[in-house]
Amino acid sequence: MVSVEILDSPAEVADKADRIITMLPSSPNVIEVYTGPNGILKKVKKGSLLIDSSTIDPAVSKEMAVAAEKMGAVFMDAPVSGGVGAASSGKLTFMVGGPEEEFAATKELLTCMGANVVYCGQVGTGQAAKICNNMLLAIGMIGTSETMNLGVRLGLDPKLLAKILNMSSGRCWSSDTYNPVPGVMEGVPSANNYQGGFGTALMAKDLGLAQNTATNTRTPVPMGALAHQIYRIMCARGYAGKDFSSVFQFLREEEEGQ
Amino acid sequence: MVSVEILDSPAEVADKADRIITMLPSSPNVIEVYTGPNGILKKVKKGSLLIDSSTIDPAVSKEMAVAAEKMGAVFMDAPVSGGVGAASSGKLTFMVGGPEEEFAATKELLTCMGANVVYCGQVGTGQAAKICNNMLLAIGMIGTSETMNLGVRLGLDPKLLAKILNMSSGRCWSSDTYNPVPGVMEGVPSANNYQGGFGTALMAKDLGLAQNTATNTRTPVPMGALAHQIYRIMCARGYAGKDFSSVFQFLREEEEGQ
Amino acid sequence: MVSVEILDSPAEVADKADRIITMLPSSPNVIEVYTGPNGILKKVKKGSLLIDSSTIDPAVSKEMAVAAEKMGAVFMDAPVSGGVGAASSGKLTFMVGGPEEEFAATKELLTCMGANVVYCGQVGTGQAAKICNNMLLAIGMIGTSETMNLGVRLGLDPKLLAKILNMSSGRCWSSDTYNPVPGVMEGVPSANNYQGGFGTALMAKDLGLAQNTATNTRTPVPMGALAHQIYRIMCARGYAGKDFSSVFQFLREEEEGQ
Amino acid sequence: MVSVEILDSPAEVADKADRIITMLPSSPNVIEVYTGPNGILKKVKKGSLLIDSSTIDPAVSKEMAVAAEKMGAVFMDAPVSGGVGAASSGKLTFMVGGPEEEFAATKELLTCMGANVVYCGQVGTGQAAKICNNMLLAIGMIGTSETMNLGVRLGLDPKLLAKILNMSSGRCWSSDTYNPVPGVMEGVPSANNYQGGFGTALMAKDLGLAQNTATNTRTPVPMGALAHQIYRIMCARGYAGKDFSSVFQFLREEEEGQ
Repeated sequence: MVSVEILDSPAEVADKADRIITMLPSSPNVIEVYTGPNGILKKVKKGSLLIDSSTIDPAVSKEMAVAAEKMGAVFMDAPVSGGVGAASSGKLTFMVGGPEEEFAATKELLTCMGANVVYCGQVGTGQAAKICNNMLLAIGMIGTSETMNLGVRLGLDPKLLAKILNMSSGRCWSSDTYNPVPGVMEGVPSANNYQGGFGTALMAKDLGLAQNTATNTRTPVPMGALAHQIYRIMCARGYAGKDFSSVFQFLREEEEGQ
Repeated sequence: MVSVEILDSPAEVADKADRIITMLPSSPNVIEVYTGPNGILKKVKKGSLLIDSSTIDPAVSKEMAVAAEKMGAVFMDAPVSGGVGAASSGKLTFMVGGPEEEFAATKELLTCMGANVVYCGQVGTGQAAKICNNMLLAIGMIGTSETMNLGVRLGLDPKLLAKILNMSSGRCWSSDTYNPVPGVMEGVPSANNYQGGFGTALMAKDLGLAQNTATNTRTPVPMGALAHQIYRIMCARGYAGKDFSSVFQFLREEEEGQ
Repeated sequence: MVSVEILDSPAEVADKADRIITMLPSSPNVIEVYTGPNGILKKVKKGSLLIDSSTIDPAVSKEMAVAAEKMGAVFMDAPVSGGVGAASSGKLTFMVGGPEEEFAATKELLTCMGANVVYCGQVGTGQAAKICNNMLLAIGMIGTSETMNLGVRLGLDPKLLAKILNMSSGRCWSSDTYNPVPGVMEGVPSANNYQGGFGTALMAKDLGLAQNTATNTRTPVPMGALAHQIYRIMCARGYAGKDFSSVFQFLREEEEGQ
Repeated sequence: MVSVEILDSPAEVADKADRIITMLPSSPNVIEVYTGPNGILKKVKKGSLLIDSSTIDPAVSKEMAVAAEKMGAVFMDAPVSGGVGAASSGKLTFMVGGPEEEFAATKELLTCMGANVVYCGQVGTGQAAKICNNMLLAIGMIGTSETMNLGVRLGLDPKLLAKILNMSSGRCWSSDTYNPVPGVMEGVPSANNYQGGFGTALMAKDLGLAQNTATNTRTPVPMGALAHQIYRIMCARGYAGKDFSSVFQFLREEEEGQ
C-alpha cells in the first residue's frame, strides 16, 4: 500500500526522508530544489541518497554532487529515457552516474519504475549518456526524414524504401522502429498525425543541452548543431507540440508554384 | 567454364552479345559508353538487355533508357551496395530499376553475383535507392562519430556508450555494426587504422550525386548537404583514401593549447 | 525609333539578325533555344554575336560557346544583376564571359541597358561571377538576419545594432544597404512587408546553381550549402514570392508556449 | 606621469580604488575576480564604478551587476573590439552596457584608451553587441572564403572577383577590408601567411559565447552555429593560432588524386 504525504518544501522532504528522487524540467529548477533557501540540502540527513532523474547539464549534476557531499549525502544523476508509453508499462531506462558503491541501492529503488537501470560512471555520466543518445536520435530522425522525402520524389514507394534502408547500411531506429512517413508503420506518431510521442520542444531542449555541453568542452558536433537549429526553427513554426518525427512533414511540403 | 574475349569498343560488345552489364565510375562515362561514337547503342541488337551497375545520377539512367528504347533494347539501372568484402563473398545487394517485366531476366543474371536483388520501380529508382541509402549512411556515420566523441569527453567509456546507444533510440548501423571508434568493435576499419572499407572519396562522390538530385528536384536535405560538405573537406585534408568512418578521427583530434 | 518584329522561332531570329541577346529562366531553356530543332544555331549567320544574359550553369554556357563556334558564331555569357529597380533606371550590371576581342562589341550593345559592363574572362566566367556574388549575398543576408534577431532578443535596439555592425567588422551589404529588419531602413523590402525586391524562389534557384557548380568542381561550400537549404525550406513554407530578406521574419517568430 | 602599484588580490584593489577596469579571458575568471573569496566585491567602496572589458556571456555580466548593486557599486560591461593594431594606435571601440546615467563617467575613462565608446543599453548589451558583431563577422569571413575559392576554381581571377563582389551585393568587410585570399590585398594577415590578426581560437571562443547565448534565449542561428563548428574543427586541425581568415586556406587545399 502506498501512502503519500505532501510537504511544503524540498527542505521538509529532506527532513523526513533519506532516499529522495527528483525529476524537474531544467537545470535552474534542480539548482533551486537542491541548493535554494528551502532546498533539500538545507535539511538533508547524513547518509541520504539523492537521485535526480531530470535531464540537465552534466556540469550542474556535478555541482549538486559536490554540494551534497559537503552535507554528508550522496547525489546520483539518473535521467530516464523511453517516454510516456514506457513509463506506464514500466519499461523506462535509467542511466545512472555517481559513486559505484551507491549504484546497487540506486538500482534497487529505480527498478521499481524501470526495466533497465544502467551504470554509466562518475556523476554526470548518466546525463552525458542521455544527451548523447538524444543528439544521435535527432540526427537520425532528420536524416531519415529527408532521405525518405528525397526517395519518394525520385519515384520510390516509401514502404519499399524503408524496407531497403532497413536491410542496408542506412538502417537506424528512426527508419526501422519509428518511421516518420505516414503509412509506412502502424502504432507510431506518424500514423497518428504526429500526436503523442516525444515533443519537438523537448527535443529542442535536449539538443540545446548537448550544444552547451559540446561548446563548453570544445567538442565539434556539426550534425548535432544543425539538428538543434532545425528543431529550434520548427518550434517557432508551429511544431513545438508535435512529435519530433514531424520533421518529415516540415521538410516535405510542396513548394508554391511548382 | 568461362571464356573471356576482349573487344575494342562497347559497340563491338553490343554486336556480339545481347545481355550486357556495365559498371563505370561516373555519369559522363556511362553517357560515353552507351551513346558515344563507339557506344553500345551504335550496334545494339533489338531485344537486348542492358544492365548498368554504375552509381550515377538517376536522370542519366532515364536518358539512357529512352535512348535504348529507341533502338529496341531495354536499359535497367542496377547499382550495387556492399563493398569489396560482399563482392568476394557473393553477398552484394543490387537495387534494380526498369520495366517490371524485365526484372526476372535481370535478377537471373545478377543473382550469379549477388545475394540480394531488389526491384525498386521504374528506371532510375535503383539509383535513387542507392543514393538515399548512402546519404542516410553518411549522416548516421558523422552523427555517431560526433556523439561518441562528445560522450568520451564527458567521461563515458566508449564501449559502454556504444552499448547504451545500441539498446536505445540512438541505435544505427554505424553504431552497432561499423562503429567508428577504435577499440569498440573488431573486424571493422576503425580497428585497422581506417584501412579498407568504403573510401571517403567514394562517399563524397555519392553525396554529390544525392546533392545534385535533391537540388534538381527542389528537395530540402539539410543534413545530407552538411554531410556532403564534411566529406568534401575531409578529402582535401588527407582522408580521401581512408574508410569513411575516419570522420571520427577527423573530428576527435585534440586542440592545440588546451 | 524602335521597331519590333515578332518571329516564330529562335531560328528565324537568327536568320534575320546577327546580334542576338537572350535572357531565359534556366539551363534547359537555353539549350533548347540555342541547340534545339528550331534553335538559333540552326540558322545562325557566320560572324554573329550571341549574348546570353540568362543566369545558368557555367558549364552550359561553355557548351553553347563550343556549339556556336562550330557554326562560325561567337557566344558570350552576360548575366545581369541589380533587379527590377536597376533595370528601370538603367543601372544594371552585366558580367561578361567570352573571347576578350569580342568584349568591346558586347559592351557597346549592353551599355544601352546597363550602367556597368564588366569583363570577367573566358566564357562561363560571367555566370561564375554572378553565382559567386549571389551565394555570398545569401550567406550575408541569413547571417545578418539571425544576428539582428539575436541582438534584439538580448536587449539591443535594432537601429542601434545595425549602426554598430555597420561601423564594425560585421558590416555587409545586407546590414548597411538592405537591412532585413522592419523599421531599420526605409525604401527596402523589409519596410514594405517584404514585397518587391528579389524573390526567395529566385535566390533558391541561384543557390542551386552554385551548389551544382561547387559539387561538380569538388569545392567545399559549407555556408553556401546551408544557405541553399534554408531558402529551399522557406520556399516550401510560403516564402517563395517574398523578398529574400524575409528570412529575418522566417527565423524571428516567437515560439509557442514561451 | 603614471604610477603603478601591484596588489595581492582584487579585493585589495577595491579597497584602494573606486574606479576599476577589468579585462579577463572568460566568464569563470570574471565570476572569481568579482565574487570570489578575494574578489572585488568583498571590499568594494560604495559608489565605485566597475567596468569589465572582458568578452563574456551577457548573463554573467547581469549577475555581476546585481551583485555589485547589493554592495552599492555600479557594474558596466564594456567589451572591446579592434585587435592589437587598434589597441596600440588608440583606435579600439568599446561597446558599453549599464545604467545610462553612468555612461558619461565610463566614457571619460575609456576614451583614454579607445577612439569609439558606444552606449548600447542596459547591462549586458555591450556583450550582446560584441558577440553579434563577431558572429556576423565569422559568417562573412567563411562565406567570403568559400565564394572566392569557388570563383577561382571556375576560372575567375581573385582580384577581379573581389572587385566585382565589392561593387555588388556580395560586399562585406571580409571581402573589401580583410580579404582572405593571398595576393588580393596588402597589409592583411592573408598577405603574411595568416600571422597576426585575430586568432582562430579566439574566434571559436566568441562563437561559443554566441551559441550559448542563442541556445539560452531559444534563438535560431543556423549560420552562426555552422560557423562555430567550422572554427572549432579548424582549432583541432592546426589553425588555432592563425588569423581567422585562414579558413580560406583550410577550405582551399586541393584534394588528393584529382
